[in-house]
Amino acid sequence: MNASAPGVYLGLDIGGTKIGMCVGTPDGRVLASDRFPNDPALKPEAMLARCTTRLAELAAGVGGASVLALGAACPGPLDYRAGKFINPPNNPSWHGFALRDWLAANFACPSAMMNDANAAAYAEWLWGAARGTRTAVFLTVSTGMGAGLIIDGRLYEGPLGLAGEIGRIQLSPSDDGPVGFGRRGTVEGYCSGPGMSQMAAAEATACTHRGEESVLREVLKKEGAITPERLCEAARAGDPAAKRVTDRVARELGRIMAIMTDILNPEVFVLGTIGTAYPELFIPGATGTLRAIALEPATAIVDVRPSALADRGNQQALAVAHYTFAANR
Amino acid sequence: MNASAPGVYLGLDIGGTKIGMCVGTPDGRVLASDRFPNDPALKPEAMLARCTTRLAELAAGVGGASVLALGAACPGPLDYRAGKFINPPNNPSWHGFALRDWLAANFACPSAMMNDANAAAYAEWLWGAARGTRTAVFLTVSTGMGAGLIIDGRLYEGPLGLAGEIGRIQLSPSDDGPVGFGRRGTVEGYCSGPGMSQMAAAEATACTHRGEESVLREVLKKEGAITPERLCEAARAGDPAAKRVTDRVARELGRIMAIMTDILNPEVFVLGTIGTAYPELFIPGATGTLRAIALEPATAIVDVRPSALADRGNQQALAVAHYTFAANR
Repeated sequence: MNASAPGVYLGLDIGGTKIGMCVGTPDGRVLASDRFPNDPALKPEAMLARCTTRLAELAAGVGGASVLALGAACPGPLDYRAGKFINPPNNPSWHGFALRDWLAANFACPSAMMNDANAAAYAEWLWGAARGTRTAVFLTVSTGMGAGLIIDGRLYEGPLGLAGEIGRIQLSPSDDGPVGFGRRGTVEGYCSGPGMSQMAAAEATACTHRGEESVLREVLKKEGAITPERLCEAARAGDPAAKRVTDRVARELGRIMAIMTDILNPEVFVLGTIGTAYPELFIPGATGTLRAIALEPATAIVDVRPSALADRGNQQALAVAHYTFAANR
Repeated sequence: MNASAPGVYLGLDIGGTKIGMCVGTPDGRVLASDRFPNDPALKPEAMLARCTTRLAELAAGVGGASVLALGAACPGPLDYRAGKFINPPNNPSWHGFALRDWLAANFACPSAMMNDANAAAYAEWLWGAARGTRTAVFLTVSTGMGAGLIIDGRLYEGPLGLAGEIGRIQLSPSDDGPVGFGRRGTVEGYCSGPGMSQMAAAEATACTHRGEESVLREVLKKEGAITPERLCEAARAGDPAAKRVTDRVARELGRIMAIMTDILNPEVFVLGTIGTAYPELFIPGATGTLRAIALEPATAIVDVRPSALADRGNQQALAVAHYTFAANR
């Protein structure tokens, strides 16, 4: 960071298992970063105090430029009116924590918290795969399945910050399909890591019953569960049963994208975590389904892409800082 | 119209069976109006020439105030890039007609065409049931089923004007349910006039097979078809079979509203034509289904209402004039 620079942003990427911290530039480059495991034994205030100290060290390490804003990307759903967490999965000690007030009390710069799917959409639109579009949808495809929306050149979060909470939408009857958001057959059931694990286990069991060999059977037997990574690696290596599962996930992704295309007429869908790690397993199938079922003139302009951010989690947090900086400027 | 008034808008409400013309104020009051049956034997240019002459008479009749803008509300889908009709139902002679260029060549004031669902959403937000909200959805529930979207205090139409084309979304498998948009089980199948006619006929047949009396059987036998008005009047009069159909329509309306709530977190849904004429048949059931299945904090703020416009078709056309006037100001 040189002395003529306009200042830096600070970012906090609050996840279920770790908290990322970073210092970055107004154009979204990460200058320094670190991460701590999110210790469930610590209260949020204690965790955040550690992060604040480390952020100050990181900022000093890059030359101590003035801090323009701080952004925190947080697992949803959040209570936007109160500035609180509702019930972050894997992180019971954060339930109900009033992060917005805590940030305002502990940082002199403008600060804000944002649902991580919305932060990701904004980051992709500013600096990543949705750059240059006016209407774009980010899909997390991660531990949960949520969407972030850029509509007509602006981030759209909804009056309660609940726009894009698509995980709950039913794609098949609620007595069929994997569980997500507490129900079978939902978008989060089919299009999330835990949902893929359920589908992989069911497929492994089906293979056993029909006497078909599969890597999935071996993994399930040895490890008691099949992680999404194991599933995707098996599909990538050509295991037919694993490929059936990832093909199904791709089709269900295509179905929710078709619904969103008919409602929003977007130019691009950006797929997060799993879609970014294994684009060839999901993007062609999802795109094919989308084009087969949504309204034709709209499908002709829509593109499906993996994330193009080099350091996603940190850049999402920086995008929140950018958003609050722009709002306060 | 008094001499100190700032001017008037002209409106054209182009429907499948008639064209409405009006002169109105910038705050959406209709000062004078007329309508012609849309003669399928006439080319659009000839029909529109008649309308233009009549509009001039109407404007002269209210005092000849200066014309600020003209708006045309048109049946979708439209080709927004080319400013053309694509394929208006019931109106083959208008297919591909370049209305935007025709309006520009024939009126000195700013002029614009807009999808009628979008025009209705904008009119309800300016002057009707969605006034004072920042995010609202209008559902046509008419010959077709489309949505118009107000997002974060602005009309949102999408890059091709295809946002809100929800009629095509599948609510049940495509081998079940009434046909809409050429497919069984779609939103337009369940939530449109023609879809209701299909469901009413199926219910009448089911009554015959189970030996149940119903007004629907008599109407079907006598007239060969059951119009949505006949269905709704029978339900309003307490016919159990008719009520089963309207209850089902209400549930399917609730399902698509739940999907749109999870995606958009709106404050209000406004129901058009049939929902406005028979609110008690559809609004309680649709609202109950919406609240039962969408994400809870979002459902707590959402309200479902009939249109509150006194002269809907004309006011929708005036809203398009308002939109182009604001854009050109």
